[in-house]
Amino acid sequence: MRLIYLCSALLLLILLPRTCQGGNILVIPVEGSHWINMDILLQALHSRGHNLTIIRGDKSWYIKDNSTYYSTYTIPVHNSIDKEFILRVVSEMIDFERGAHPLMSFLGSTVGMLGTYLEGHEGVRKVVTTMLDDRELMRKLNDTKFDMVLSDPWWGGGPILAKYLNLPLVYNARWLFGGESHFAIAPSPTSYIPLTGSVCTDKMTFFQRVKNMILHILTQTQKHLVNQIYQKICDKYLGPNNDFNQLLIDADIWLMRADFVFEFPRPTMPNVVYIGGFQCKPAKPLPQHLEEFVQSSGEHGVIIMSLGTFVNELPADMANEIAAAFAKLPQKVIWRYKGSRPDTLGNNTLLVDWMPQNDLLGHPKVKVFVAHGGTNGVQEALYHGVPVVGIPLLFDQYDNLLRLEDRGGAKILTLSTMDKDNNFLTAIQEVLNEPSYRMNMQRLSRLHRDQPITPMDNALFWIEFVMRHKGAAHLKPASLRMSWYSYHSVDVALFLGGAVLLVLLSTFFLIRCLCNAMCKSKVKRE
Amino acid sequence: MRLIYLCSALLLLILLPRTCQGGNILVIPVEGSHWINMDILLQALHSRGHNLTIIRGDKSWYIKDNSTYYSTYTIPVHNSIDKEFILRVVSEMIDFERGAHPLMSFLGSTVGMLGTYLEGHEGVRKVVTTMLDDRELMRKLNDTKFDMVLSDPWWGGGPILAKYLNLPLVYNARWLFGGESHFAIAPSPTSYIPLTGSVCTDKMTFFQRVKNMILHILTQTQKHLVNQIYQKICDKYLGPNNDFNQLLIDADIWLMRADFVFEFPRPTMPNVVYIGGFQCKPAKPLPQHLEEFVQSSGEHGVIIMSLGTFVNELPADMANEIAAAFAKLPQKVIWRYKGSRPDTLGNNTLLVDWMPQNDLLGHPKVKVFVAHGGTNGVQEALYHGVPVVGIPLLFDQYDNLLRLEDRGGAKILTLSTMDKDNNFLTAIQEVLNEPSYRMNMQRLSRLHRDQPITPMDNALFWIEFVMRHKGAAHLKPASLRMSWYSYHSVDVALFLGGAVLLVLLSTFFLIRCLCNAMCKSKVKRE
Repeated sequence: MRLIYLCSALLLLILLPRTCQGGNILVIPVEGSHWINMDILLQALHSRGHNLTIIRGDKSWYIKDNSTYYSTYTIPVHNSIDKEFILRVVSEMIDFERGAHPLMSFLGSTVGMLGTYLEGHEGVRKVVTTMLDDRELMRKLNDTKFDMVLSDPWWGGGPILAKYLNLPLVYNARWLFGGESHFAIAPSPTSYIPLTGSVCTDKMTFFQRVKNMILHILTQTQKHLVNQIYQKICDKYLGPNNDFNQLLIDADIWLMRADFVFEFPRPTMPNVVYIGGFQCKPAKPLPQHLEEFVQSSGEHGVIIMSLGTFVNELPADMANEIAAAFAKLPQKVIWRYKGSRPDTLGNNTLLVDWMPQNDLLGHPKVKVFVAHGGTNGVQEALYHGVPVVGIPLLFDQYDNLLRLEDRGGAKILTLSTMDKDNNFLTAIQEVLNEPSYRMNMQRLSRLHRDQPITPMDNALFWIEFVMRHKGAAHLKPASLRMSWYSYHSVDVALFLGGAVLLVLLSTFFLIRCLCNAMCKSKVKRE
Repeated sequence: MRLIYLCSALLLLILLPRTCQGGNILVIPVEGSHWINMDILLQALHSRGHNLTIIRGDKSWYIKDNSTYYSTYTIPVHNSIDKEFILRVVSEMIDFERGAHPLMSFLGSTVGMLGTYLEGHEGVRKVVTTMLDDRELMRKLNDTKFDMVLSDPWWGGGPILAKYLNLPLVYNARWLFGGESHFAIAPSPTSYIPLTGSVCTDKMTFFQRVKNMILHILTQTQKHLVNQIYQKICDKYLGPNNDFNQLLIDADIWLMRADFVFEFPRPTMPNVVYIGGFQCKPAKPLPQHLEEFVQSSGEHGVIIMSLGTFVNELPADMANEIAAAFAKLPQKVIWRYKGSRPDTLGNNTLLVDWMPQNDLLGHPKVKVFVAHGGTNGVQEALYHGVPVVGIPLLFDQYDNLLRLEDRGGAKILTLSTMDKDNNFLTAIQEVLNEPSYRMNMQRLSRLHRDQPITPMDNALFWIEFVMRHKGAAHLKPASLRMSWYSYHSVDVALFLGGAVLLVLLSTFFLIRCLCNAMCKSKVKRE
């Protein structure tokens, strides 16, 4: 299967340099973990000879100032989207999840967090407004003759700036502030398409469908509230009749960070390109000390654990519970953990500040991945076919893990129950000893890798397609420009219903008149 | 752009022979023009080392008995789907179209032809029943250990046999008996997705939307009637609880003979693969006498005309009108026509029984293509970027041409008006002299050719994918197994509506009780 990837890369090398060189791309990224994905794409674009210019706020945490492969315009706003803001959101959400009743958990990411969401988008609005007010910057951007805007629809700055500069727009997308991106652009029956936070698969019971529908209504309300924040910018800077929601969904191409090995099959649109796992690559050799540690595990193999970059430390009782469980296993363990060393840590466990996660997952000795369920980790596990014990913390993590669990490749523990009744140890042992977990992940891995073109090559192809053809208008459906009642044929249904009613009533009155006439003539004759 | 195709072919050569060799494919094709497309795909599959076995009726017209690249099982039924039946259908439809009032024309292919459609499917039912009753044949098919069934959903035999033999199913599709295939599997709002026969684009007026909705209801009724014919086979041979409609739409992969340069953008599904234009290839040199004729046109260039393989002859008055129009032009004309030589034929016009259409369309001297709008011809015109004067005769031909006309690449004449007021000559002159027609077709050609993998390679990849993985269940949406009321959340809406009503009524009564109580206590105090 790797041959497919090698040959595709070869094809790209032969093919692409001739078809589109040195494009000028304006990037409006999103702060935080979204940047990790965007950055990988930008490095690939840079290596293909494109010039990248990035807009960032002056308190950006992840997005560094000028780098070797991109230049930046830094917007001087002491905005609220900084490290402290993001860590506060994460911390609030983890507290909510840990204490939440299961019934309430699914409301957490909408109602519970609404204030924080709105605060975040209000911060973005300030950045965008400051930027648009800066005439010198706008003149520079106009003069640079960009070929396109590359953005992430989680924040609303990208589509507004693309419209302002009249440039084609490509999204590196998975989320909108109104939930998963597909819901904004493709028909999405809530009867079998679970919303993020619903903790449902595509096979729902009646009450799960009720819950999914309620969550959909709440998510749409949240989206409507956020829309209003950005609509103010449209009204002030883009002139009349620029509906923000229409701008938002009017991108030329949506590079969607998913595929249908990971995501449940659902309706999609012609301008959606699936690039799930585009960041994954074959494992490189491990550093010597890690390779030696891994080899020392013998036939038992290795467990690796990471809860992502946001969570450096766990409550002491929980960390001790985890360490004690690991200590009871014959496997070796590599645990990415920055907190203080748990008292119960066994000799078999190596604590590290950072680990080469992709290279470890691709190592044949690694048997289980204990993960929080962030998109990157889940996609890497899927790419390498390693079964997962999941401890979801926040955002989409439960739903990501659920997609693996539903296909038999993962076991999920919740924060509120994982430290009780040896749940953690039991889960690890189950995934280690029951061969179906590994077989299912290996099957998913085979399906994921068997594509006619690698996800990264696909992403690059479509970005360059948009630059070659100055957009992809031929892939945008006419529905983008329709009112809701036209789209849903409400007017047509009323018209046809009225027409049928008219025909029925006319027939009824005609028959009645005929009957009356016949009765009268009968009476006369009598 | 051609480099893309060359490199993709190179990739396929390097890559595919290693990944899937010598598959065993059972083919249930459709008679008539559908076979032309299927045959091209079969030749490509044969050249990739796959064994092909074809089921045909003993009076098949297009599908010949054993060939060099496939073997056949011929079903001994003197069925009605023979040459005479097909020519009768075509002739009836042309008569209908020529005499039809424009308002009625859109009903022609549903209500007007309903009897003939049902007769055709009844014929297919007889073939399938005879086949399933033939125990010896069924034993042979079972013993052959096929890897998959390749079929065309225009007839119902493929899905039934695939279910009977428990094999994965791939369609080479564009039509179902219930209209365009997408309507059966993807959400299809009639507000912007025109039905075949509606003579609408994706931008409709209110009354066009009404017409489209009525046509949708008629098409669904027609589909329901045809379903009942095949349901009888399911009930008898597949046991209980096998709904034919569910079998029909449960294919692993739909290779759709369209793409979104040709088709209006619309919702699609993960298991739909677009292979529009898969039959097109770069032009080969012309035979010497044709090349000489073409070169003799000088700077004026050449017009080519063909109305497809079904129409050998036109009414004499119409043929004379066309020949006279051609005679007035400075261009040379190559006209594929088997009827008697029109009296008005000019010296500039060459009548031929057959012409290398693809090679002529790829010749730089060819300026205009006068075509009936069959899928093959339209796709070839699009591939080579040659503008079209369209004379649609029947089936989907008007709608095919409409897709070119809407993008400014074609001009359509109707059978009922083309021989009046020099309409034909005027149309040809307009398309010759107005540069936008050619520019638009060239633009569409560039878009169509700019794909990461050629449509044919894509088709082969996904057929072999299904053989490698024994299906593509992970791409089939859960909606395939849902009842209509669950899918549309009718039960959930009733439940939530009821709950809201209950809350409102309870609140109302509570307030009334409170008011009453307050009034009473007030009265008492007074």
